[in-house]
Amino acid sequence: MPQLDFWYEFASTYSYPAAMRVEALAAARGVGLRWRPFLLGPLFAEQSWRDSPFNIYPVKGRYMWRDLARICESLSLPLNRPEPFPQNTLLAARVALALPEARRAAFSRAVYAAEFGQGRSISDRALVASLVGEDAEAVLGRAESPENKAALKAACEEAKALGLPGAPCCVTTSGEVFWGNDRLETAVEWALRG
Amino acid sequence: MPQLDFWYEFASTYSYPAAMRVEALAAARGVGLRWRPFLLGPLFAEQSWRDSPFNIYPVKGRYMWRDLARICESLSLPLNRPEPFPQNTLLAARVALALPEARRAAFSRAVYAAEFGQGRSISDRALVASLVGEDAEAVLGRAESPENKAALKAACEEAKALGLPGAPCCVTTSGEVFWGNDRLETAVEWALRG
Repeated sequence: MPQLDFWYEFASTYSYPAAMRVEALAAARGVGLRWRPFLLGPLFAEQSWRDSPFNIYPVKGRYMWRDLARICESLSLPLNRPEPFPQNTLLAARVALALPEARRAAFSRAVYAAEFGQGRSISDRALVASLVGEDAEAVLGRAESPENKAALKAACEEAKALGLPGAPCCVTTSGEVFWGNDRLETAVEWALRG
Repeated sequence: MPQLDFWYEFASTYSYPAAMRVEALAAARGVGLRWRPFLLGPLFAEQSWRDSPFNIYPVKGRYMWRDLARICESLSLPLNRPEPFPQNTLLAARVALALPEARRAAFSRAVYAAEFGQGRSISDRALVASLVGEDAEAVLGRAESPENKAALKAACEEAKALGLPGAPCCVTTSGEVFWGNDRLETAVEWALRG
């Protein structure tokens, strides 16, 4: 089965519609999907960005929010901007990575729905725990273990080595990188090339 | 007839495939197209960028060139990177603006084909003149008249007022901005909404 890695960051606005669309798109073409949470912060820091480029460059920011509103409307997704933007996503990313693959996608979509659908603060521990479900205490424990912290750092290093310019990105097994919600379809077609 | 403004900058890499696609797309949906040359330099200078963001941020640059190669391949467009990148596009932009609308599209496509298809230097006066055709001397004279220089400055001011975050952009009569070669289709559909 052809594979595609879906790299996402919970602070990334365009990752929200992408996370809601990507699984159905891949499944429809028989492409297996791996959910790869990571953090943009370390990558952006290397480019001397200490904040979201959408805040640093207000022209890009204004355009993005309008563009995202149109995209969400076309997908019938609610959109509410969380405050502050961007959110601190360290805990959510650690939890996503700590979850078994079978639960990661549903948890990740729930995080995006809370953050950008409802405008809630996903740095809130109680909110993240509520999105995990019954075994939240055990999962959060694993999420904050030294092993899992190291695994998230390794994922960020891998993202850097792959040359990911932002999020979301789809990466084929042959190493082709596709950046953006608007490239999901093309990425899935490339995954089929092997 | 619904209208769409196509804003483009000759130094913009993604404007190359967009310029080659946009007219057929618009015509197929009965949308009239206005070709609006402008310069990104003045807009970028306001964001403290003195060079192409693709040079300032090498990770973005490497991604863009690979992405552009895939796009050009899928459209059967040749791709050769001009040196230096970005090119000085002042003369070409002035000439595009000085030409009557009926000749502007064909000239603009010829500039992109020379620059990114053949990797030629479009700051070269003789090359630009050859792309204009028989009346090149008269057209270049008009292009460098005070009136035309002022008209290009006014276009850049208009682009700034519209909040264009880069090039290419399609702008509907209702003021919706769509940035990127990958948004042409959506922009044409929005133009039909009026």
